[in-house]
Amino acid sequence: MHVIVDFTVVPVGAGISLSGYVAEVERVLAESGLTFELHANGTNVEGEWDAVMAAIRACHERLHALGVPRIHTDVKLGTRSDRPQRMADKVASVKRVLGA
Amino acid sequence: MHVIVDFTVVPVGAGISLSGYVAEVERVLAESGLTFELHANGTNVEGEWDAVMAAIRACHERLHALGVPRIHTDVKLGTRSDRPQRMADKVASVKRVLGA
Amino acid sequence: MHVIVDFTVVPVGAGISLSGYVAEVERVLAESGLTFELHANGTNVEGEWDAVMAAIRACHERLHALGVPRIHTDVKLGTRSDRPQRMADKVASVKRVLGA
Amino acid sequence: MHVIVDFTVVPVGAGISLSGYVAEVERVLAESGLTFELHANGTNVEGEWDAVMAAIRACHERLHALGVPRIHTDVKLGTRSDRPQRMADKVASVKRVLGA
Repeated sequence: MHVIVDFTVVPVGAGISLSGYVAEVERVLAESGLTFELHANGTNVEGEWDAVMAAIRACHERLHALGVPRIHTDVKLGTRSDRPQRMADKVASVKRVLGA
Repeated sequence: MHVIVDFTVVPVGAGISLSGYVAEVERVLAESGLTFELHANGTNVEGEWDAVMAAIRACHERLHALGVPRIHTDVKLGTRSDRPQRMADKVASVKRVLGA
Repeated sequence: MHVIVDFTVVPVGAGISLSGYVAEVERVLAESGLTFELHANGTNVEGEWDAVMAAIRACHERLHALGVPRIHTDVKLGTRSDRPQRMADKVASVKRVLGA
Repeated sequence: MHVIVDFTVVPVGAGISLSGYVAEVERVLAESGLTFELHANGTNVEGEWDAVMAAIRACHERLHALGVPRIHTDVKLGTRSDRPQRMADKVASVKRVLGA
């Protein structure tokens, strides 16, 4: 089952500057081999369900190993059974409607 | 790694009444053996990371099998490495502060 | 426009124990006069759109005033134009399907 | 109070193709005058709290007016009291850490 995900990792109890931790999340995703893209409020990633979930788990494990005591993560998951869909299609579909 | 989760499954393209699908989600969770609790905007569940994620995946598979073509799910995940925490502790801690 | 909301306030850069801040969120909601209910991963609240949003804003303002430098909040919002719905109806509908 | 937001509008009971509705959300945001950017799983927007919330409300009102009977929206909100931050800074900070 292919899944398209947006997720945001919020380290708690590890200070106020989070960019170092977000960079670490990007490194974990790069190691996963999945397709992903950072945006201003999270990261979009897609792939087989178990591979994507394993990558998010690896992000938690990595940040805890770096000393983050508590992590809150939001995940938005989308699956479809009617037809295949990729992340790139989603933005393209909206832009087509907008004539952009 | 123990995880405390809140998730909301939103079936898309399957009509406007969602309670039958939410009931199915509760059945899948009951079958999983995990600790869970329905609330007005989602379901709280806790357990080992992989078991919880497998249960959420099973919810998607079950609803797609029932004919839901598209599913949007929100998940809030919390993990801690400083000390064990259970769902029941979280509400109790807040109530203790409130003197309730 | 009536809205049914679940929200979770995550204070960042204010230490690891969050229950005092969550208790403060509950106090702000009590002052708002809105219907709300704490659960293990957030708080459900309902009312007129602007009143609910003002309450969430008041939570941010209160926590910043208490010294929290950074706040991440998740909100799930539901509105309907087909018929009125209240929070209490949502759980009851699912339980009816489950025969519980 | 400046807020940086990611939000995803999920129309329910309005069929399976959502790109027309997402395009409408982009139009509402363009009319608002706020800074926003579509991504694969939502839209990032920033501005004064009340202006951003009014824009999200306008999205719900527009889609209901177009016949969508039920709308589920996820919002991630970030505020800071320690220093000003803009959306563009967030991605730039992470890229700086990554040396990209």
